[in-house]
Amino acid sequence: MEPNTSGNMQHDDDDDHHQCLEIATMEVHKVVPPPRRSTFEKLKARLKETFFPDDPLRQFKGQPVKKKLILGAQYIFPILEWGPNYSLKLFKSDIVSGLTIASLAIPQGISYAKLANLPAIVGLYSSFVPPLVYAVLGSSRDLAVGPVSIASLILGSMLRQEVSPTKDPLLFLQLAFTTTFFAGLFQASLGFLRLGFIIDFLSKATLIGFMAGAAIIVSLQQLKALLGITHFTKQMGLVPVLTSVFHNTNEWSWQTILMGVCFLVFLLLARHISMRRAKLFWVSAGAPLACVILSTLVVFAFKAQHHGISVIGKLQEGLNPPSWNMLLFRGSHLGLVVKTGLVTGIISLTEGIAVGRTFAALKNYQVDGNKEMMAIGIMNIVGSSTSCYVTTGAFSRSAVNHNAGAKTAVSNVVMSVTVMVTLLFLMPLFQYTPNVVLGAIIVTAVIGLIDIPAAYQIWKIDKYDFLVMSCAFLGVIFISVQEGLAIAVGISIFKILLQITRPKTVMLGNIPGTDIYRNLHHYKDAMRVPGFLILSIEAPINFANSAYLKERILRWIEEHEAEEDLKKQSSLGFVILEMSAVSAIDTNGVSFFQDFRKAMEKKGFELVLVNPLAEVIEKLQRSDVAGDFRRPDSLYLTVGEAVASLSSTIKTRPSNLV
Amino acid sequence: MEPNTSGNMQHDDDDDHHQCLEIATMEVHKVVPPPRRSTFEKLKARLKETFFPDDPLRQFKGQPVKKKLILGAQYIFPILEWGPNYSLKLFKSDIVSGLTIASLAIPQGISYAKLANLPAIVGLYSSFVPPLVYAVLGSSRDLAVGPVSIASLILGSMLRQEVSPTKDPLLFLQLAFTTTFFAGLFQASLGFLRLGFIIDFLSKATLIGFMAGAAIIVSLQQLKALLGITHFTKQMGLVPVLTSVFHNTNEWSWQTILMGVCFLVFLLLARHISMRRAKLFWVSAGAPLACVILSTLVVFAFKAQHHGISVIGKLQEGLNPPSWNMLLFRGSHLGLVVKTGLVTGIISLTEGIAVGRTFAALKNYQVDGNKEMMAIGIMNIVGSSTSCYVTTGAFSRSAVNHNAGAKTAVSNVVMSVTVMVTLLFLMPLFQYTPNVVLGAIIVTAVIGLIDIPAAYQIWKIDKYDFLVMSCAFLGVIFISVQEGLAIAVGISIFKILLQITRPKTVMLGNIPGTDIYRNLHHYKDAMRVPGFLILSIEAPINFANSAYLKERILRWIEEHEAEEDLKKQSSLGFVILEMSAVSAIDTNGVSFFQDFRKAMEKKGFELVLVNPLAEVIEKLQRSDVAGDFRRPDSLYLTVGEAVASLSSTIKTRPSNLV
Repeated sequence: MEPNTSGNMQHDDDDDHHQCLEIATMEVHKVVPPPRRSTFEKLKARLKETFFPDDPLRQFKGQPVKKKLILGAQYIFPILEWGPNYSLKLFKSDIVSGLTIASLAIPQGISYAKLANLPAIVGLYSSFVPPLVYAVLGSSRDLAVGPVSIASLILGSMLRQEVSPTKDPLLFLQLAFTTTFFAGLFQASLGFLRLGFIIDFLSKATLIGFMAGAAIIVSLQQLKALLGITHFTKQMGLVPVLTSVFHNTNEWSWQTILMGVCFLVFLLLARHISMRRAKLFWVSAGAPLACVILSTLVVFAFKAQHHGISVIGKLQEGLNPPSWNMLLFRGSHLGLVVKTGLVTGIISLTEGIAVGRTFAALKNYQVDGNKEMMAIGIMNIVGSSTSCYVTTGAFSRSAVNHNAGAKTAVSNVVMSVTVMVTLLFLMPLFQYTPNVVLGAIIVTAVIGLIDIPAAYQIWKIDKYDFLVMSCAFLGVIFISVQEGLAIAVGISIFKILLQITRPKTVMLGNIPGTDIYRNLHHYKDAMRVPGFLILSIEAPINFANSAYLKERILRWIEEHEAEEDLKKQSSLGFVILEMSAVSAIDTNGVSFFQDFRKAMEKKGFELVLVNPLAEVIEKLQRSDVAGDFRRPDSLYLTVGEAVASLSSTIKTRPSNLV
Repeated sequence: MEPNTSGNMQHDDDDDHHQCLEIATMEVHKVVPPPRRSTFEKLKARLKETFFPDDPLRQFKGQPVKKKLILGAQYIFPILEWGPNYSLKLFKSDIVSGLTIASLAIPQGISYAKLANLPAIVGLYSSFVPPLVYAVLGSSRDLAVGPVSIASLILGSMLRQEVSPTKDPLLFLQLAFTTTFFAGLFQASLGFLRLGFIIDFLSKATLIGFMAGAAIIVSLQQLKALLGITHFTKQMGLVPVLTSVFHNTNEWSWQTILMGVCFLVFLLLARHISMRRAKLFWVSAGAPLACVILSTLVVFAFKAQHHGISVIGKLQEGLNPPSWNMLLFRGSHLGLVVKTGLVTGIISLTEGIAVGRTFAALKNYQVDGNKEMMAIGIMNIVGSSTSCYVTTGAFSRSAVNHNAGAKTAVSNVVMSVTVMVTLLFLMPLFQYTPNVVLGAIIVTAVIGLIDIPAAYQIWKIDKYDFLVMSCAFLGVIFISVQEGLAIAVGISIFKILLQITRPKTVMLGNIPGTDIYRNLHHYKDAMRVPGFLILSIEAPINFANSAYLKERILRWIEEHEAEEDLKKQSSLGFVILEMSAVSAIDTNGVSFFQDFRKAMEKKGFELVLVNPLAEVIEKLQRSDVAGDFRRPDSLYLTVGEAVASLSSTIKTRPSNLV
């Protein structure tokens, strides 16, 4: 019985077993180069994987021309796909959910428009046209479209840096529409150019921190309405807002505060009930409209507008007026408008896509991210010329839509029609609606964005992600919304670069009785194989880490030698690099192998590579010095085979015994 | 005979073999969680791997205090390590090499100072003090220290953006010294803060493109001296320089051109001879000094300075005057100076470290990058207060040093003393040295930076790296030196991010007769295992790629199902993810597994993980839903074991046959 089969000698009792391993491992399998492909083929494959990972056109393959045309039209207008099969039964579901989200959309529309420093009516306009566009172009069945809190906040605060919404309301409105145009253009381009993955750079941790920070900023802004303050700071940060609030205590109006607290408690209670029982979703869905009606009646009955309670005031009746003549493509504010469009575009896209994906996963259908981006983008471009500001799929509203049983995008149409009716006939009713109730509606809506359990979960799973989240949160609260976001994204990317720059290398040992090799520091029963140092490199090798890897591996070898000196074991003969996890190398990586091989030769060790992947083999072959690695005894398919085969050569080679 | 052992049924002839595999694979090995470590321990280990990968203090461990003090002093001043063993034999070698590099350093020092728009004498000052400092602090035995061409070019061109070296020479000199101070401070800080890996972001491809571009820019600047033009553009780009040259043809001086061509041919010939035979290194090493002497004599003999040949003019005798009173830490140019210090600091550091590592590898000793950075940084800080500008280890001079047989840093001392003698006694001799010969010396020196074979090699190995190289090259030539560099670094980092965003997933198949599983598209003899889809994920899973991975894996499954439909094979039951290459996950990665498991359940497939690494197991465990992955039949140590064990359950489970 030869004891060298798997490099350990503990199991001599189990002869049969050993015999087997020997047969299995002594048959050495060759590492072969991958099949040849031209540079063009490789480029094509790489581009496809990068930009068309979901292969969106595969259903077109091998179809007749007519079928292709139909599929093409369905691809561009998903309504053609589900429209022909639409039934009365589906419509019944959609009409219920459409009316439910309309009851939520009307007060929220007015509130969010005020958050964006825009006239309240623009919020209603934005709940009329975009849902219709989305119903035709969108592929999600649950998304409820309209203005959202965070995009409204960012749009309002960024534009206010240059133009005052009170002193120059027309210019502010023009800038808002132009911003919407650029946001839509940017969103549609991302989708069209298949660059949708850019939104993936907003990690979950970043978003949770960002959302919580933004919710607090939004809520702080509502202190103006909730306390009835007339002179309020124009800044957004925690410190200036609180300073402003407590410097103007003389402006606090007890009537407003009383009303605000009552409605806030009512709304939060309704929210709590719906969260406890999903079936009672309509309680929180209907509560805002109930509040608006009730508060309007109260103001009207008591003439409270004369007792320190500010009201919305007269709203113009009628549908969206055209606004393409209000888009400003020149002038000194263009830079700001483009930047604001970019930030609001990305943020609202992130929300819309995330919402779409969440509900698609729940109902087990797929949403094409890039196609969805085009739909949202076109919706905003159309919106910008019909007096709408930035809209997207809102999380809270889509959840209500889903719970209310929406089956298709027709629920958006129903909501849109309801808003249309409101715009045409019901606008005078809002004249006495107090601003304080809008503030309460906003606070209730954004409070759900603060997700403490998710934050705790992140703390438990990944401390670095928690750091990212905290930076986003604190950055948003203390610096500014967009800078907080930028800092968090920067830190997230820095982590990735750090992982690349400092890849893990682990020492492998043999799990006794097998030819499996695993991390010695993880699997305590794994054993070192005398004479071998087996290292696994767990990252692509490139310019950012080749110098580190060389240094780190040399340290592994030195430490190994020092330990062997202590134990007076047999001296090291082979350094085996397990390459299964090295998915790519670049020219620096190739140099790394050349240099490292030379360094090993100088030390008198043999360098053996195990299971290099296709790209690595190719690149090593193309470099001149790779010939070294084509010798059969320096390239193996598994660690087990390498150890078995090389152990046997030690015995036949007297020189190695010195 | 059970045919389910390794999932393939081709080798029924080899019964013994099969029997073995069965025994080997049916014994299932558990995936165990890694040993527990506290967050603090993990943070400590991570920080150590990030900032102290080479564990520089390990020699201190377990030593008595006195020994520790000695080791500490030797660590800070490497001269204490090799100084006591210094012998006459070593000194003989060092004196020869020291004199050789001095003969190169004197003309190069004068030339490079002119390239930096500084007085020629500053170049000699910079070859006197810094080598002495390096000899005490540096750990490389071959580095020859002094001013270098590219750092000189960048310093001169960046400072000239704000201050004219001809109109305001004193201010320009002050800014140059201050820049040197900041460069040194920056270099020393990088070393001290263990952030040396920052220079790794200049990949080989970037450097080759950048060096070639810079060499061309430097050579173009020499057209002024070589053609004898007096009115020369102050811009650096290819286009403005050539325009300037051909707009001033009337200023061309035939005497200068004739002299320039003669010496250029001579120098290039000398370079060619030395490149052919390494033993004749002294030909190219001595040629510049020979040219300077010869040309000075010619000018002196023919009074050529009156015939259109411009000469250096009078140079002040004496050693470096102190210059700490010339450092400007306030004023309007501070921003420029800091920026220039940063760029020249990084660039000269990159050259110095690369040279040190190259020769250390040749002679098989190690250079501690971070320590070396501190040495170079302190050398520049000292230099900035003794009238020196930015210096580092120069490649060409170090190569000459190495070839001339330098044994220790004493060769730098010998060079320094020779320069001192020159400064004290020989300065009047340079009065008649023509500028044209300095131009020829610079061109000959930088021409070696254009490395066509390396560029071809990069083209052969990696097309993307070639793109990076071309961008660096074209950017330097057509835009500016620092922007070209920034573009190339940006593209390099973009590639890394792209690799992370679009990680490879490959389908594995069984290599018949083994329990080895490899990429089906690489190993043509690998076979699919009916009922299983085995995918290997080849990257860490994080926020940037979790959405992509889900989409891509779902497409693998769909394609697989479509193919199975065509072939009417047994339907898919298990999706196995081989995780050996997933070195890390973050909270988005954890969510990916939760979502993906749910998606698989909806489709009726079982998700099985194979060999998740320590960090992945830990994080999955810490998330609440990970319980799913603790079931014994969803976690295996090898693909072979998973397939063998799950194949047997298929038979015992009637539900799966439907």
